[in-house]
Amino acid sequence: MEGIAIFPGSFDPFTVGHENLVRRGLSLFDHIIIGVGHNTGKGLYFPTEQRVAFIRAEFEGETRVSVESYDNLTVDFAKQKNAQFILRGIRTSADFEYERAIAQVNRQMTSIDTVFLLTTPQHTPVNSSIVRDILKHGGDASLFIPPTVYRCITEYMNLK
Amino acid sequence: MEGIAIFPGSFDPFTVGHENLVRRGLSLFDHIIIGVGHNTGKGLYFPTEQRVAFIRAEFEGETRVSVESYDNLTVDFAKQKNAQFILRGIRTSADFEYERAIAQVNRQMTSIDTVFLLTTPQHTPVNSSIVRDILKHGGDASLFIPPTVYRCITEYMNLK
Amino acid sequence: MEGIAIFPGSFDPFTVGHENLVRRGLSLFDHIIIGVGHNTGKGLYFPTEQRVAFIRAEFEGETRVSVESYDNLTVDFAKQKNAQFILRGIRTSADFEYERAIAQVNRQMTSIDTVFLLTTPQHTPVNSSIVRDILKHGGDASLFIPPTVYRCITEYMNLK
Amino acid sequence: MEGIAIFPGSFDPFTVGHENLVRRGLSLFDHIIIGVGHNTGKGLYFPTEQRVAFIRAEFEGETRVSVESYDNLTVDFAKQKNAQFILRGIRTSADFEYERAIAQVNRQMTSIDTVFLLTTPQHTPVNSSIVRDILKHGGDASLFIPPTVYRCITEYMNLK
Amino acid sequence: MEGIAIFPGSFDPFTVGHENLVRRGLSLFDHIIIGVGHNTGKGLYFPTEQRVAFIRAEFEGETRVSVESYDNLTVDFAKQKNAQFILRGIRTSADFEYERAIAQVNRQMTSIDTVFLLTTPQHTPVNSSIVRDILKHGGDASLFIPPTVYRCITEYMNLK
Amino acid sequence: MEGIAIFPGSFDPFTVGHENLVRRGLSLFDHIIIGVGHNTGKGLYFPTEQRVAFIRAEFEGETRVSVESYDNLTVDFAKQKNAQFILRGIRTSADFEYERAIAQVNRQMTSIDTVFLLTTPQHTPVNSSIVRDILKHGGDASLFIPPTVYRCITEYMNLK
Repeated sequence: MEGIAIFPGSFDPFTVGHENLVRRGLSLFDHIIIGVGHNTGKGLYFPTEQRVAFIRAEFEGETRVSVESYDNLTVDFAKQKNAQFILRGIRTSADFEYERAIAQVNRQMTSIDTVFLLTTPQHTPVNSSIVRDILKHGGDASLFIPPTVYRCITEYMNLK
Repeated sequence: MEGIAIFPGSFDPFTVGHENLVRRGLSLFDHIIIGVGHNTGKGLYFPTEQRVAFIRAEFEGETRVSVESYDNLTVDFAKQKNAQFILRGIRTSADFEYERAIAQVNRQMTSIDTVFLLTTPQHTPVNSSIVRDILKHGGDASLFIPPTVYRCITEYMNLK
Repeated sequence: MEGIAIFPGSFDPFTVGHENLVRRGLSLFDHIIIGVGHNTGKGLYFPTEQRVAFIRAEFEGETRVSVESYDNLTVDFAKQKNAQFILRGIRTSADFEYERAIAQVNRQMTSIDTVFLLTTPQHTPVNSSIVRDILKHGGDASLFIPPTVYRCITEYMNLK
Repeated sequence: MEGIAIFPGSFDPFTVGHENLVRRGLSLFDHIIIGVGHNTGKGLYFPTEQRVAFIRAEFEGETRVSVESYDNLTVDFAKQKNAQFILRGIRTSADFEYERAIAQVNRQMTSIDTVFLLTTPQHTPVNSSIVRDILKHGGDASLFIPPTVYRCITEYMNLK
Repeated sequence: MEGIAIFPGSFDPFTVGHENLVRRGLSLFDHIIIGVGHNTGKGLYFPTEQRVAFIRAEFEGETRVSVESYDNLTVDFAKQKNAQFILRGIRTSADFEYERAIAQVNRQMTSIDTVFLLTTPQHTPVNSSIVRDILKHGGDASLFIPPTVYRCITEYMNLK
Repeated sequence: MEGIAIFPGSFDPFTVGHENLVRRGLSLFDHIIIGVGHNTGKGLYFPTEQRVAFIRAEFEGETRVSVESYDNLTVDFAKQKNAQFILRGIRTSADFEYERAIAQVNRQMTSIDTVFLLTTPQHTPVNSSIVRDILKHGGDASLFIPPTVYRCITEYMNLK
């Protein structure tokens, strides 16, 4: 059986930490579907279609990675895609507690298991909310965003 | 002196974890008043009167439990009800830090002490925000909500 | 039914934080039995009989508090004493994780529930291991130990 | 070289914990600039100009402390002020994880280092959000706010 | 390429939580080698050869699981076995911090990545140190140890 | 007044994380005294005089850093050296809770304040216990120990 994992998130924006997790996840899974959540309640900075486009540009040519948006429960999206696993990164113990509750509830509702990789040390402080704050204030976030995504974001922000 | 405790919360919705805490609390206290907070700022899913009604249905016939909404500070509500204790459950260490600050400030302002029980292991991942998310997406949350409350919620959501 | 709680610990030594918890616990329980564990593996500083004697001196005249040493599992000691509850204090989130595991296992093995009170803010940094370290180096630990216990400890250390 | 530190925050309101940190920080730094963030997204209770005025009243006559509002990234504000350091207090381990991410990202972007002091035990439970909640409900928050700030707040609230 | 993972630990004793992780890990990996560490410094309760024998009995007939003791660094043992992954369970945020440091150092020294699964809620409080304590005091630990392992342990303890 | 800080620890061994903290601390303090604790109870790997010698080699020529061993309470050592501050690094939230208790107790006993710097992200997983474990097993720990200290350690271990 082919191993398929969903890598769900808001990715507002997609950071070097996210990219590192997807690349490492490819040694565990045959296919990774990056699931970009609408999360309409969260007051997102980049529109969903842009977040999808940024990440697609990053993984262009990587046939084992696909990128899709979704609007339902993560476990329902996973079932729809025949995924057996959800892939998540953990940075801090605050992350851990939040992820644990979600993963355990998902597991009680379905047979889908969540697999965790830890961020590398240098990526540990990088989270989307801090990076977004730098972008909003016109700061230089190029250290924290993969080059292709950063170029796309810069182009998009110049157009606005 | 009769031991009276307030069990305060948003209960949006009331979960199996909440129910378990109230039932165990009855071996510690003579009377438990479930205080349903208005918390208008929080963007609640169920209106206050519904949340009160759902929980009242659950504890119908249990004369040592009563359910009321309140709109003031929890310690002021407790004093008004002649309660000497606030009862709280703790699920995770993130909960703990938040609860500690509130409990210690309450104790500095009044003589009311907060008593903590831990959720049982199987209820630890269940929190209202995850359960609400399942309900919003039309998922099956019956594992995480007491049967009577779940029936009331289903009826209420069908009426809307 | 009379509410009886065990307050178990090594109490090596008994601190102002422990004393505060026992006194507050008396508003919840009819009787508190302070259970002084042998914990032979732990390399204790004060012998068990001394630790029992120090705490007995502190609560002399308080008929609702008794002090005993025990050498079995805490839940077995509790059953032996007809206690329905174990009383524990939590200072930090590190404490919390440790206490949660013990309390949940105890609850799975018996019907005995663990009730938690939080230390008051000024007692939060005080733990027996820090206080013991001060005593070992001949420092002044009188801020962190109840006066009666401190006097007993001083007398005992002078005799050695 | 003169040591200058920024002490950034929302200070909505400024608490006894904040005041204690500034006073202790004066033994480390020659000058402390209290930076009051606009944080427009946060739904602040007191307007920025009021928060600045309250804190200026508190430190009137203390020539080594100044108070300013700012609207850019904290590191950009620090550079503008020739500060080499950011001063922050940590109360809990939840605070710590949040502060660590910000401090490490700031350090990767600039040479500005963040210096942490711990709140004193009695101030540990006091955070602006709890204090604000007490004020909103008309409770007595005088234990948690420095006297001068509290007098200013009371006057301001009576005027409204 | 065949996916091989090491599942390292002291397993003093092997619990229901460990067993659950190995079984779930089999959906991720082709082969799992349970690595039983000597950890001579730790003052182990069961001798290494017994711990190996207990776990072998549990997985008898499961050809994709093997059990071996090792005495070197976990990453060196993994390389020796051609494993590309280390499998670890996380129960609590205290576990998480400890595991993160080890996993990140291992990753800096080698290309071996650590994959984490979370314990199921009902297994979260079960750790070997609590279970060992129950066994030492002659308590009933059958809820916390897989049946085959428990039978082996009982036989072994009766022989002594 | 000259700012003097003690940087206390076991340094068994001194890591790249420790070195980074001392160098950054020099922008805060006029003089840093690295205090190498005897901690006889801890079962140290390198003898105290060696740990002192390793660190002295590292800071040779840096007149604002001195290295000494001590056997009393850290606050007593600090007072003896006329230090007004204790400098400590924090890596994780587990560290934080431990450090907070010590720092707050020290502050209650004396006027000495503890100043915290955070480790840089890449040093966060490096702690002496993991590094010691690598050395004990003959692994290559050169990534985690400053070059001069590593050369001294290698020479010392070859002599044994």
